[in-house]
Amino acid sequence: MTGQKTSRRLLGGIALAGLLLTLPALGQDAAPAEAAEAAATVSEGVSADVVFILNSLLMVLGGILVFFMAAGFAMVEAGMVRTKNVSMQLLKNISLFGVACLMYYLIGYNLMYPLGNWIMGADETGGYLGAFGIAVLEAVGVTADTADDFSYAATSADFFFQVMFCATAASIVSGTLAERIKLVPFLLFTVVLTGLIYPIAGSWKWGGGFLDSQFGFLDFAGSTVVHSVGGWAALAGAILLGARRGKFNADGTVNAMPGSSMPLATLGMFILWLGWFGFNGASQLAMGSVNDMAAVGRIMANTNAGAVGGALAALVLSGLLYKKFDLTFVINGALAGLVAVTAEPLTPGLGTASLIGAVGGIIVVLGVPMLDRLKIDDVVGAIPVHLLAGIWGTIAVVFTNPDANLGGQLISIIIVGVFTFVVSFAVWFILKATMGLRPTAEDEDAGLDVAEIGIEAYPEFR
Amino acid sequence: MTGQKTSRRLLGGIALAGLLLTLPALGQDAAPAEAAEAAATVSEGVSADVVFILNSLLMVLGGILVFFMAAGFAMVEAGMVRTKNVSMQLLKNISLFGVACLMYYLIGYNLMYPLGNWIMGADETGGYLGAFGIAVLEAVGVTADTADDFSYAATSADFFFQVMFCATAASIVSGTLAERIKLVPFLLFTVVLTGLIYPIAGSWKWGGGFLDSQFGFLDFAGSTVVHSVGGWAALAGAILLGARRGKFNADGTVNAMPGSSMPLATLGMFILWLGWFGFNGASQLAMGSVNDMAAVGRIMANTNAGAVGGALAALVLSGLLYKKFDLTFVINGALAGLVAVTAEPLTPGLGTASLIGAVGGIIVVLGVPMLDRLKIDDVVGAIPVHLLAGIWGTIAVVFTNPDANLGGQLISIIIVGVFTFVVSFAVWFILKATMGLRPTAEDEDAGLDVAEIGIEAYPEFR
Amino acid sequence: MTGQKTSRRLLGGIALAGLLLTLPALGQDAAPAEAAEAAATVSEGVSADVVFILNSLLMVLGGILVFFMAAGFAMVEAGMVRTKNVSMQLLKNISLFGVACLMYYLIGYNLMYPLGNWIMGADETGGYLGAFGIAVLEAVGVTADTADDFSYAATSADFFFQVMFCATAASIVSGTLAERIKLVPFLLFTVVLTGLIYPIAGSWKWGGGFLDSQFGFLDFAGSTVVHSVGGWAALAGAILLGARRGKFNADGTVNAMPGSSMPLATLGMFILWLGWFGFNGASQLAMGSVNDMAAVGRIMANTNAGAVGGALAALVLSGLLYKKFDLTFVINGALAGLVAVTAEPLTPGLGTASLIGAVGGIIVVLGVPMLDRLKIDDVVGAIPVHLLAGIWGTIAVVFTNPDANLGGQLISIIIVGVFTFVVSFAVWFILKATMGLRPTAEDEDAGLDVAEIGIEAYPEFR
Repeated sequence: MTGQKTSRRLLGGIALAGLLLTLPALGQDAAPAEAAEAAATVSEGVSADVVFILNSLLMVLGGILVFFMAAGFAMVEAGMVRTKNVSMQLLKNISLFGVACLMYYLIGYNLMYPLGNWIMGADETGGYLGAFGIAVLEAVGVTADTADDFSYAATSADFFFQVMFCATAASIVSGTLAERIKLVPFLLFTVVLTGLIYPIAGSWKWGGGFLDSQFGFLDFAGSTVVHSVGGWAALAGAILLGARRGKFNADGTVNAMPGSSMPLATLGMFILWLGWFGFNGASQLAMGSVNDMAAVGRIMANTNAGAVGGALAALVLSGLLYKKFDLTFVINGALAGLVAVTAEPLTPGLGTASLIGAVGGIIVVLGVPMLDRLKIDDVVGAIPVHLLAGIWGTIAVVFTNPDANLGGQLISIIIVGVFTFVVSFAVWFILKATMGLRPTAEDEDAGLDVAEIGIEAYPEFR
Repeated sequence: MTGQKTSRRLLGGIALAGLLLTLPALGQDAAPAEAAEAAATVSEGVSADVVFILNSLLMVLGGILVFFMAAGFAMVEAGMVRTKNVSMQLLKNISLFGVACLMYYLIGYNLMYPLGNWIMGADETGGYLGAFGIAVLEAVGVTADTADDFSYAATSADFFFQVMFCATAASIVSGTLAERIKLVPFLLFTVVLTGLIYPIAGSWKWGGGFLDSQFGFLDFAGSTVVHSVGGWAALAGAILLGARRGKFNADGTVNAMPGSSMPLATLGMFILWLGWFGFNGASQLAMGSVNDMAAVGRIMANTNAGAVGGALAALVLSGLLYKKFDLTFVINGALAGLVAVTAEPLTPGLGTASLIGAVGGIIVVLGVPMLDRLKIDDVVGAIPVHLLAGIWGTIAVVFTNPDANLGGQLISIIIVGVFTFVVSFAVWFILKATMGLRPTAEDEDAGLDVAEIGIEAYPEFR
Repeated sequence: MTGQKTSRRLLGGIALAGLLLTLPALGQDAAPAEAAEAAATVSEGVSADVVFILNSLLMVLGGILVFFMAAGFAMVEAGMVRTKNVSMQLLKNISLFGVACLMYYLIGYNLMYPLGNWIMGADETGGYLGAFGIAVLEAVGVTADTADDFSYAATSADFFFQVMFCATAASIVSGTLAERIKLVPFLLFTVVLTGLIYPIAGSWKWGGGFLDSQFGFLDFAGSTVVHSVGGWAALAGAILLGARRGKFNADGTVNAMPGSSMPLATLGMFILWLGWFGFNGASQLAMGSVNDMAAVGRIMANTNAGAVGGALAALVLSGLLYKKFDLTFVINGALAGLVAVTAEPLTPGLGTASLIGAVGGIIVVLGVPMLDRLKIDDVVGAIPVHLLAGIWGTIAVVFTNPDANLGGQLISIIIVGVFTFVVSFAVWFILKATMGLRPTAEDEDAGLDVAEIGIEAYPEFR
């Protein structure tokens, strides 16, 4: 009935069938096993009501966990900016979450999941532009007969889960542009990102759009659809906004601007890691069968393995390269590992998931100085973490999921990237030309907490 | 069997039926839908065992989330008090949680949920004073036949969920009275609040007492029963305790005393927001049917919408009024939005829930300076957030729940308010007259961490 | 099928039956109740699929909560060390978590749960040394017929839950040895602890080893198996490593070295408390029957009661002994209460659980100065909290669980203790003799953040 759900489930089923057929050890009894499962579901009786309840419960739990990622982003960013901009960064994180939820309710949800009602395109040929209209929950008192999609889950549970993803995409932008952007243009960009850019790009895959139907694009929980979208939008902004005053010297050297609080950054990383269990685990979108529940378990174990791989790889590599162990690399390494495993947390084994995450960690350690050389000032390292590791993870799907094809993955990465970067750049450009993005030099030097917020983060410590 | 459970479920059913009958679009098929639901539950087979398991699971999950609100309160308050009182505020939050759990076990639970055994009144006519006695969990090894209330949930799950609500009510008081109250009288007040005041007021509604049966009072998850009770108790204490030294000048001006750490305050807000999904969502008290699960989903989405509305309204209004964006207003705005939507998180749509929350946010921006003008020193803004927004939310039930009546809501607000304020005032008065509430002026100036705790919060930063 | 699962469930059943038979009020109908339960599970129909789903869900939820304890340890330790060592402590906590997950995947899981394939011993006579080999999750697409243990849960859910326990044991060591150990030897010890020591000791009980089968050792969620193991390893390290420079004076006096941030320490405690609901609650390992769900509810309520008892006892006792209320004692008191109730969170009532926790809190208040007198420098108090309260909790099982015998508990405590201490001491000794454990005196004085990490925790505050 609903594009996203159908397509994601269908792909899951295809992926599983494909894997079963290709794995030599399992090939023999793959078909009977599938048949047995189908029979079991019917005869052994997970009743349709219970399936609806368990699926909805999974998405509610997932939504709660992904919500908490907003706190994780806020803490990571508060810890990685300098003291004089901490209150601003906190306020931006609360506000962008609010804007994202509001815009997703007003426009985004139906734009992303048009349920067949495409303005441009159709489910069969692949949609290009979804439907406009506010999100409407099912009436109070729905039953098996009156539920929007009884075989799936409660609409409210689905909305609650999806709205949190939209907020996540917006959170990514905030960290890159920290310490030198005014609040109002940032929030106006967030309006466009969460109301239009993210939902439109997302609809191409999860809404049953053309990347899904024409290119066989696979992105289980959003390495590209969520994380790279946020990363591209951040990159466009960083280029137009320029670096913080004093970050890059004329002689090509870089001034380190260490973050104000490593405990907050570490706490934020742990909170994000925690939330990722909902982000990936609940993206299975179903928990009402033995198969689905076991898949959720696999996803949890693999998501954790990806984070561990990223953290340990960043620890070892930064230790080898710099002779000291760099905490911020390890923090970002864990996050990059999580981003990398997000495109396919189901099909890898624990070892493969660890390796996919480890490459993410290496990308961070190499990517951060690379951005410095390009004079792109990414305050928290969100571009290596979310964009570069997101691209890597999306490509890596082909290593474990036989249903993925490299061409489809690459072209989808490019299409989503070009769309997001171009539209984001245009929006940033308009904002820069009209109201301006940056505070005055004096305000930037004084810190945005004094200039725009009026409340210092640690008033007694300065 | 149990008053609370019966009354809350019954009201839920009535509310749903009422809504279905009054909503024009749904009126036609309301009755068949209800019938279908009833039939489905029986025939499609969510077995009685599974209903018991799912209901109990919902309350266990809710209890865990509401527990974490204790950390949220601790962080909000630690962030909003000055450095010299942070350790005291942390200790108060841990201790009050302990006292609340102990008193609720010893007295509160049975006083609040007498299960028909009222000392004064009866379920039929409405109870006034519940039963005394410690809480007793079911024996190990209960079965369908031996469970206290098999059609509801495990007694232990119910106790675990309810005890966390009691602790929440106590947490509210702590913030208002910060920086100028000694630990021992504060904890003694908490003994009375959590052992007597909260359970008695709560029994009038959730225990099946007279507000429920005689006035048709509706308060889904406790805008009045929990939040206003905490707010009234705090207000009584603030009046008797007086303001912090140096807060109000003789010429009528107010000295700002900014909090020590905005990251902690923000983190606390996010933790409270997280916990609120358990607070409101698990107050559905049932997850064993399509209807109940969809209701839980709605409550989650609406709770989030309420918080978003409160945060954004406070952001915009504080920006317009003060030309700077005030982080503490936004933090408290989100919390006030949550309090406001707590009285009825089920029946509104997303837009209405956002608006109800937005009014909560406006109440904060207007309420904080109002209290200043009244020379009531509310350190963290708990009175606007929990008391004023709680009153608003309780009134707002009538806008979306046709089963609510304005008279019943208002009279219940007043009865709970008068009872809580008068008894709290009396207890604070006795404590003040006997052992005194305030530390010496020297101790207050030095900070309570040095005076009473002996451990500074940040010993190396001073 | 699997040792751990069989033995733990069996013991649960025996415990329940025993309790029912010994409790006078319940003795009469204990047998019929058991029979009714068996009948109900079959006839009322929690289908086998649903049991599998619910059991797996419990472990997934438990794993998520226990994961977050890593953040709790990081925050407690970051708050309790001095500013100059905070980044190191954070890095250690992330890294040890990664090492633990990696080693448990590579060796630990099969060593701990050999499923009958013991290298030394057998399930029947009691195993001594488990199997070697990496952990392998079930294939994607398992069904009732192909699941590793359909009557239990998904292997991935089990692994996800168990790996978090391994990480917990390693976290305990980190705090005791803070501020004076180099990163690399610490992580090498962690490799041995999480790959060999913890899994081997754990296999003796939860893997169906000889402590379980020969001594009837009872340790529900790991007061001994997890917490004491961590505590013994920490004690061995503390003895060989020596105290921090300047901690103990030649005249026998002790220099207080207060922690850098009480809010972080308090936050960490709350996070640990939160995670403990997963630690203990999900150790029931089953949620697919009325009996199991009610047990989970009891465990949650009792776990909370244990923490409350520990916090309040430490508050009162420290107030009486020192005339000031000591926040760190209260934090550690709550944690010790949690450790104490972990060996048996099911059979006590709320009052007994509170008392068991309270003794844990008293152990902390008395144990911390005792260690000082022994000139053992335990920076965060992990030895009283995890080792001493763990021993107490393991002994206390005999008070509420009639199936426990004091001899079996004591001999198991001793065997686990001797094994862990001796092996740990040997590993620490080898590391000390080869690469050295301590940084230079200059590095220690400068702080490990400068010496090894290169990133200060609060660079702008010094």
